[in-house]
Amino acid sequence: MIVHRATDAADLDPKVRKAIIVALVWGRTPRGLNLLPRLALVQAMGAGVDRLLAPGVVPEAVPIARISSKHQAMAISEYVLLHVLRQHRMLQETLNWQRSRQWSAPHSLERAKRVIGVMGLGEIGRTVCGALAAIGFEVRGLSRSKKTLEGLKCFDSSELDEFLHGCQHLVCLLPLTRETEGVLNARTFERLSTGAFLINVGRGAHLVEADLIPALDSGDLGGATLDVMIDEPVPPDHAFWSDPRILLTGHTAAANSLGPDEIAPQIAENIKRVSAGFAPCCFVDRKKGY
Amino acid sequence: MIVHRATDAADLDPKVRKAIIVALVWGRTPRGLNLLPRLALVQAMGAGVDRLLAPGVVPEAVPIARISSKHQAMAISEYVLLHVLRQHRMLQETLNWQRSRQWSAPHSLERAKRVIGVMGLGEIGRTVCGALAAIGFEVRGLSRSKKTLEGLKCFDSSELDEFLHGCQHLVCLLPLTRETEGVLNARTFERLSTGAFLINVGRGAHLVEADLIPALDSGDLGGATLDVMIDEPVPPDHAFWSDPRILLTGHTAAANSLGPDEIAPQIAENIKRVSAGFAPCCFVDRKKGY
Repeated sequence: MIVHRATDAADLDPKVRKAIIVALVWGRTPRGLNLLPRLALVQAMGAGVDRLLAPGVVPEAVPIARISSKHQAMAISEYVLLHVLRQHRMLQETLNWQRSRQWSAPHSLERAKRVIGVMGLGEIGRTVCGALAAIGFEVRGLSRSKKTLEGLKCFDSSELDEFLHGCQHLVCLLPLTRETEGVLNARTFERLSTGAFLINVGRGAHLVEADLIPALDSGDLGGATLDVMIDEPVPPDHAFWSDPRILLTGHTAAANSLGPDEIAPQIAENIKRVSAGFAPCCFVDRKKGY
Repeated sequence: MIVHRATDAADLDPKVRKAIIVALVWGRTPRGLNLLPRLALVQAMGAGVDRLLAPGVVPEAVPIARISSKHQAMAISEYVLLHVLRQHRMLQETLNWQRSRQWSAPHSLERAKRVIGVMGLGEIGRTVCGALAAIGFEVRGLSRSKKTLEGLKCFDSSELDEFLHGCQHLVCLLPLTRETEGVLNARTFERLSTGAFLINVGRGAHLVEADLIPALDSGDLGGATLDVMIDEPVPPDHAFWSDPRILLTGHTAAANSLGPDEIAPQIAENIKRVSAGFAPCCFVDRKKGY
């Protein structure tokens, strides 16, 4: 097997183009995939494929597959646990007490049951729900079509309002599709428990950015941790940098969790499959968008 | 049943003293327990009993019992997870990046396996170990006598050095006894992985305070989160307040986790037991000190 590197297939020698059967993609949107006549698979090297589904990027006849990663799901679970717990356990207040040399006010730490809503119940969402439930949070999950998962109240997209009602934390792990774009908006925030916390680990375009600071000002939201943004890296003049209620975490939730030990066998398996005329694993449904 | 309140039994009417069979204790060290001729049980309303074991506090013949609380074990697990994760996921750096409007440096987030050493394998220690293992940390436990617990490398007190070697986080959940006093000292810190993080949720006297800042300066330790201190509340002129590598959390790890729904049935059961001449549940072994 020979491996060639290019962002645009047009940069490759025409003979090479004719031989390519699999395109591995990561980071920037690939160009010129339509110039590869034998292309039988576009294999994303991560979980998100929204950029590959933009019109004209991947020829209609070519299947798209993504990676399923237990390590990535664990890394994102750590991230969500950290940011839920830092709010639940009043870490910011604790850091402030340290600065003012004040021996805390433990009576202000309430022990009431926390309700956490997780949007997206794929491999990552299910792992996150399990980690949150294991330490005693009440967790509910939302997915496009209704799922039945042990120990988890599940809602489908027609039950969005019911799902949101009473949530003190809202965690977005959705794929970015036409249906999910902008789902984190003023209407959504209003329906949460007053002062709820938002954690977005999906895509930047899930959040209607203009709705965030007004929701924090009105008290609908108490804070937001955003790992993803529409423009990354976020420019220094963006209003989210200077708002103490917002924390930007620089697309690090899953950072460095994808290693060759997990990715390589999945790619090898998919190359075998498409070479033999079978559908690849972790096949993307273009209609659903993930 | 009649309930009387006093810190010193000497303040009670002599007739009342003669009638008392159970002393419930919480917070300040009780006085005058030797003035209660029928006293059959000293019931601590929490997990720690070190103050009750000081000479002369509880007459030798009177059994001491403590509370076993699942809610408290869960609250402490949340605390330990938060403080392990805030270091593991570089929260302080992330907060600094936010302040300097810098879109992170995800390459600096290493994904190597973290080894966490938990000292103390009672109900709380076992719950903490389970929570840490569930999100993928490598956990090892230390207890006075060797235990066998599923999925956990267990060490006894004679294997302290082996236990410490390679730990990147050290979590102290020990009871305070003559053997464990001062266990968090320079010699212990030297044996950990360089730049390890210390989390003390045991008692203040587990830590040799004078050894902490030198260990941070030498690099043996990278940081410390201390929930308990010898003098609580810690006076404003204490050096730990102004050291950015130290976070004092004001004895909040288990705050408000003990509720009457858990405590009352255990107390009622123990009153029944000692009234009928049986030993109480959660009996304290005075020789072991817990």
